[in-house]
Amino acid sequence: MTAGLMQTPPLQIIDILKFASTAHARREIVSRLVEEPTFRYTYADSARRAAQAANALKRLGIGHGDRVSSLAWNTHRHFELFYAVPALGAVLHTANPRLFDEQIVYTINHAESTVLLFDKNFLPVVERLAPQLTTVKTFIMLSDEQRTVPGAVNALSYETLLAKESADIAWPTLDENLGAFLCYTSGTTGDPKGVLYSHRAVVLHAMASGLASAFGFDAFDVLLPYANLYHATGWGLPFAGPINGCKIVFPCDKTDGASIQELIVNEGVTFSGGVPTIWTMYLSHIEKTGETPGKLKRVVIGGSAVPRAMAETFKKKYGVRVLQIWGMTETCPLGVIATPTPELAEAGEDAMDEAIWTRQGRMQFGIELKIVDEDGKDLPWDGENSGALLVRGPWTIRRYFRKDADAASADGWFDTGDIATIDAAGFMRITDRKKDVIKSGGEWISSIDLENIAVACPGVKIAAVVGVPHPKWEERPLLVIEPHEGQQLTEADVQAFLEPRIVKWWKPDKVIFASVPLTATGKIDKKVLRSRYATALTG
Amino acid sequence: MTAGLMQTPPLQIIDILKFASTAHARREIVSRLVEEPTFRYTYADSARRAAQAANALKRLGIGHGDRVSSLAWNTHRHFELFYAVPALGAVLHTANPRLFDEQIVYTINHAESTVLLFDKNFLPVVERLAPQLTTVKTFIMLSDEQRTVPGAVNALSYETLLAKESADIAWPTLDENLGAFLCYTSGTTGDPKGVLYSHRAVVLHAMASGLASAFGFDAFDVLLPYANLYHATGWGLPFAGPINGCKIVFPCDKTDGASIQELIVNEGVTFSGGVPTIWTMYLSHIEKTGETPGKLKRVVIGGSAVPRAMAETFKKKYGVRVLQIWGMTETCPLGVIATPTPELAEAGEDAMDEAIWTRQGRMQFGIELKIVDEDGKDLPWDGENSGALLVRGPWTIRRYFRKDADAASADGWFDTGDIATIDAAGFMRITDRKKDVIKSGGEWISSIDLENIAVACPGVKIAAVVGVPHPKWEERPLLVIEPHEGQQLTEADVQAFLEPRIVKWWKPDKVIFASVPLTATGKIDKKVLRSRYATALTG
Repeated sequence: MTAGLMQTPPLQIIDILKFASTAHARREIVSRLVEEPTFRYTYADSARRAAQAANALKRLGIGHGDRVSSLAWNTHRHFELFYAVPALGAVLHTANPRLFDEQIVYTINHAESTVLLFDKNFLPVVERLAPQLTTVKTFIMLSDEQRTVPGAVNALSYETLLAKESADIAWPTLDENLGAFLCYTSGTTGDPKGVLYSHRAVVLHAMASGLASAFGFDAFDVLLPYANLYHATGWGLPFAGPINGCKIVFPCDKTDGASIQELIVNEGVTFSGGVPTIWTMYLSHIEKTGETPGKLKRVVIGGSAVPRAMAETFKKKYGVRVLQIWGMTETCPLGVIATPTPELAEAGEDAMDEAIWTRQGRMQFGIELKIVDEDGKDLPWDGENSGALLVRGPWTIRRYFRKDADAASADGWFDTGDIATIDAAGFMRITDRKKDVIKSGGEWISSIDLENIAVACPGVKIAAVVGVPHPKWEERPLLVIEPHEGQQLTEADVQAFLEPRIVKWWKPDKVIFASVPLTATGKIDKKVLRSRYATALTG
Repeated sequence: MTAGLMQTPPLQIIDILKFASTAHARREIVSRLVEEPTFRYTYADSARRAAQAANALKRLGIGHGDRVSSLAWNTHRHFELFYAVPALGAVLHTANPRLFDEQIVYTINHAESTVLLFDKNFLPVVERLAPQLTTVKTFIMLSDEQRTVPGAVNALSYETLLAKESADIAWPTLDENLGAFLCYTSGTTGDPKGVLYSHRAVVLHAMASGLASAFGFDAFDVLLPYANLYHATGWGLPFAGPINGCKIVFPCDKTDGASIQELIVNEGVTFSGGVPTIWTMYLSHIEKTGETPGKLKRVVIGGSAVPRAMAETFKKKYGVRVLQIWGMTETCPLGVIATPTPELAEAGEDAMDEAIWTRQGRMQFGIELKIVDEDGKDLPWDGENSGALLVRGPWTIRRYFRKDADAASADGWFDTGDIATIDAAGFMRITDRKKDVIKSGGEWISSIDLENIAVACPGVKIAAVVGVPHPKWEERPLLVIEPHEGQQLTEADVQAFLEPRIVKWWKPDKVIFASVPLTATGKIDKKVLRSRYATALTG
């Protein structure tokens, strides 16, 4: 008797663009392109072109449940596909051009995509991989007719296809739980795993991240997303931006400091986001040229931990506030955002900065967090106890694409693989990856914390800590130091530096001076270190 | 193959309080009370007490699908019930104490509530109506033990009940489309009609109104909601506030200027909302005392049109921005908000103020608008054409409670009963109630527009315009003027004032000087006027 008297239209991604193209019809979208001049149009134009793109894809046979892959930068064309493909009931697989060839091939084949849309400078990759892309029937280059190079794959031109199509379309009504985006995680072991974002997950994620207390950008903001659209939908900014009527500036493939600064200043950018590497280049550029970051107010940084010095420079020198975020492909990707709170503000600006700069972020509406010990028992939120970080909520994965078993537990908790602490204010801090934590006599030592301290020791270039087997304590920490060139360091120097800075039982059992192996993405390769030094304490 | 791989937990109202009580655990809620000192506690406390209240209601037999009525002010206790009752799967019917006795009885009986919770100063009403409340078994006074007066209804004390209960509860998992709130509209004709808000509608409404580009309050804001919790859940502020971590101040039943000012200044209020009457009293108070509105930044005003002078005074004299909103019980209630846009800002501050002060608001994400002519054909958004205003979306009504037919069309459009224009920027302006519009020779004349112009004529206290039958034009406008005491006005004076301000064919066919009848809620009673002057132009 008390059920179901309100309307229940499904949450559909296209409704976000419909809204922006009506309520913010003349708000601009600006896009750099590969070998084409900068392009600018409005949300209203964008909705028309998304309809044309959808009509073109329909003509190529794309419909409900089909998969389409993109190999593309952050441009207005990729943005159009973000709406056109899911609105047809099809799935956009945003292939990651940074993967190894065999992984790119694996993901496109695993998705069984029949169409591949790619930016012009990916033509060599596409030509090289095409023979192995067994399901792809049509190749479309994201360029105008004049600049399209059909190449060995006989690529069609995106603009030529669109020009033939009407902007009229009757978007189908879809089940809100239908898949919309397929994003693969590039784990360090095994094949990439596909996460299939639903319409419901993407819309709720956009609404939650668009809250005033989350990202907090409004219709006056100008966004410049450097988070790649092929990484977990560019952190959802292509949805949270339009839902708030923001102007969006797409940087394409230019991420050098001068290019960033040009867009920030010329387009009046107020809000940007990306991985730390981008901002290192940017800060070094403006420090060299003496320029200032125009109207830039806030920078969201995620992907890896924000170096404290970066956040401090942004704020103290340029008045730009850094918001650290943490998330993963499995969470669409928003997990936490390091937003300020009145309670922290009362403790003073330094305390607030400290909290925001040293922790990954605070819990946000719609995503639950917990930390558990090795028996799965809840740990207290005291900022001290660390345990496996579990998350759940309406934009968290249940099951990987084409797997037979759920990735989350029956009650929805998904184990992130990270080890973290959470404090009383809901600030979460990643202390380690689960596989990297050192288990010493039943207690845990954070390899990340130890590395962060060791790397501050004068003369140290890279510090890597791994747990290696120990006859009595199960595992003990081993510290591998790669010194700066020409620096002479001894184990005694390093231990003397560490001693006053760590609890006694964290003291590394051995310090080794060697070159530190890195993975393809520039992270310390702990697998190699663990195997290389497996018998260092037992042998 | 591409369906359903993300988690799909139901959207439940209690999750908002769970979030606020964890992420903003120590953020304050302050509440005035009836004959009790001002109360203050935190979100964490509030969640514990909501659990206790739910346990108490369970003990009284309340469970899935049951109805509970409140007759209560804006207090922390009413806020607790907003979460406790729906979280049990039961429905909270927020009875409106401003209705006539027979309407209050009708709504509680129609809801078939078995428990009635009421504030102390409603005891006389409750005692008077109790014999007719055929389904209510338990009466609970929202007071502490010491101040409870059992009265003829043997009222229990809310605080005594809570004190006995544990704060542990396992909230049930509910269907997100289950009813949560039952809000009755008090139409001018017929019995009140019940709108049953679902969990899904309330949560999505909270997320949409909490967007940065909608209400835009964040964790640093302090809300003071004067919108009554019994009016469409107090405009959803008890949900949008916690979702953003705002401090909330509940004013109970004190709405005089001095009481408002005291809370604004003492509690650091930054954001308030309510009907125009409240703000007239407030402005007159601070103008008299010479005080300033402390940290108040924004006031949301709805319920009826915002007088331009009020918005202007707030902004120019006190630096407070007025956001006009429009909505109705059938839309939870958010329809539109008069939010600024960069486009308007470029046109200059005066143009922006003009748009914001003279229109009900702009379309917001999640609620679609359209205006149609008498044949149901879409009208253009040009700010000129006016037509029936239709709305749809996930927090719009489908069917009234206990009715057999839908109130919305098969494709979801709900006719609001208002006549409106919409301009190219999505700003909607109500020009009339459908039943009040004057149909003259196939064209429409807005009674509201004519009244707004006529009331500015010197000497006029109230101006009422109704359409009355006319032999040639079907209907023509008749203007009824109630002059200020001691003012001498002639029809010629009034027509001379109108003439340069209106198009020729809007000229009232007759001006009548008389006392203007008002309804119980203080609105012009046009039904009486139409019947009184039915033959004025034909007889």
